[in-house]
Amino acid sequence: MIGLTGMPLPDFAPGSVWLTGAGPGDPGLLTVLALHALTVADVIVHDALVESSILALAPPTVERYDVGKRSGRISPQQKDITTMLVSMAHRGHRVLRLKGGDPFMFGRGQEEIAGLSAAGIPTRVIPGLTSGIAGPAAVGMALTGRDNQAVTFMTGTGPDGAVPSLDWRALVRGAQTLVFYMALRQLGEITHCLSAAGLPADEPVAVLCEATTPRQQVLFSSLSQVATAAATLQPPAIVVIGPGARCSLPANYQ
Amino acid sequence: MIGLTGMPLPDFAPGSVWLTGAGPGDPGLLTVLALHALTVADVIVHDALVESSILALAPPTVERYDVGKRSGRISPQQKDITTMLVSMAHRGHRVLRLKGGDPFMFGRGQEEIAGLSAAGIPTRVIPGLTSGIAGPAAVGMALTGRDNQAVTFMTGTGPDGAVPSLDWRALVRGAQTLVFYMALRQLGEITHCLSAAGLPADEPVAVLCEATTPRQQVLFSSLSQVATAAATLQPPAIVVIGPGARCSLPANYQ
Repeated sequence: MIGLTGMPLPDFAPGSVWLTGAGPGDPGLLTVLALHALTVADVIVHDALVESSILALAPPTVERYDVGKRSGRISPQQKDITTMLVSMAHRGHRVLRLKGGDPFMFGRGQEEIAGLSAAGIPTRVIPGLTSGIAGPAAVGMALTGRDNQAVTFMTGTGPDGAVPSLDWRALVRGAQTLVFYMALRQLGEITHCLSAAGLPADEPVAVLCEATTPRQQVLFSSLSQVATAAATLQPPAIVVIGPGARCSLPANYQ
Repeated sequence: MIGLTGMPLPDFAPGSVWLTGAGPGDPGLLTVLALHALTVADVIVHDALVESSILALAPPTVERYDVGKRSGRISPQQKDITTMLVSMAHRGHRVLRLKGGDPFMFGRGQEEIAGLSAAGIPTRVIPGLTSGIAGPAAVGMALTGRDNQAVTFMTGTGPDGAVPSLDWRALVRGAQTLVFYMALRQLGEITHCLSAAGLPADEPVAVLCEATTPRQQVLFSSLSQVATAAATLQPPAIVVIGPGARCSLPANYQ
């Protein structure tokens, strides 16, 4: 059990849903509000990306439901998840909806909030550390700097499962560093698009798999070589392209 | 005092520096690691943007040093801050360097890490929730969505204090939503650049001042009107431009 005293914490009212980000994986990167929610929730409805060490922080009696979307397997549709949350809230439960990373950064949290709102369920959003920032930080990569003043975050997988239709030429000229979520399976096509848009073959690229977890893997490569080099890596992964991918750990970084 | 038990937490070794993000303001949005650091640090060296309610979570005996940069006042130079951190670590203190938001998202944390590393000081980076994501989330704004697949974060103030030299046309065409840090004083020039780059006059803009604190203020406006409408607002502020600025709180959002 975890005790949090001395800080005013909001009341998790029965019949409400807290849409909460679990962060990138390290339980120490949970927010205090997320940890509080884990200790007082009646039910937890979580994604596949939420670490078991985080779920283990809830009391053992709490009901847990895994509604994670995994590629290649049958998983609940978004409307079914919303129906489930509404039904649990109507039964008077404190419902913790726990998503990996941040619920509003490529987490489609707004769709769940809209569904819950339409059903009259009181909701709260608790942002979480997004893997696209916390993952690079964990390996000493700064996405911004004195000469690196813009960073773009985007998904490598659109709603139809393909690479999204983006203006690649503008993306390459707009921000110095690009950070892709859910891009590992589309890496060949993404690097082809960026190369055709004018990004040099030797542009630095870093691939971070399961960042901040005990299974973390980091690959440093270049635009022209990363798709081949990353062929055996498994999602979830964050791909950093540009000057932000250059930094790495100092020798005495812990 | 705050007690954290049941979670394995890293040892904050005497003579080391933890470069830590304090998040946007709400103490509940601290990470568990940041809260842990606050309870065990010997000295805290913090920016102006760190809330007093967060500093109050440290034991009263802990020495606190405010090294915040405030516009218009004399404040410590970066090299003086690094010298101070090195000196404290050499004296065997557990030094908590606490920055508002995330230390690597426009926080120049990498410069401090490089300085500490050169001096042989063991360091750790603890990422924090960045105001550019957590601020909008607190007022129900999702920066990404099914039809909003890229978001660019940039600073409105370059190293010389002016608007940075960016390819505004590319920025406008690259990502659907743009999020500016430190942009309030440059808002007239920024909106002029974006307008000249082709962004429509009615593009939605939201200005979030002191997001997630008790002093939070939110202004909803448009590209052509926001500079005038925001004239009386005070920094710190986050400016969201594009579809991400459209969302707002459902009626039963807490």
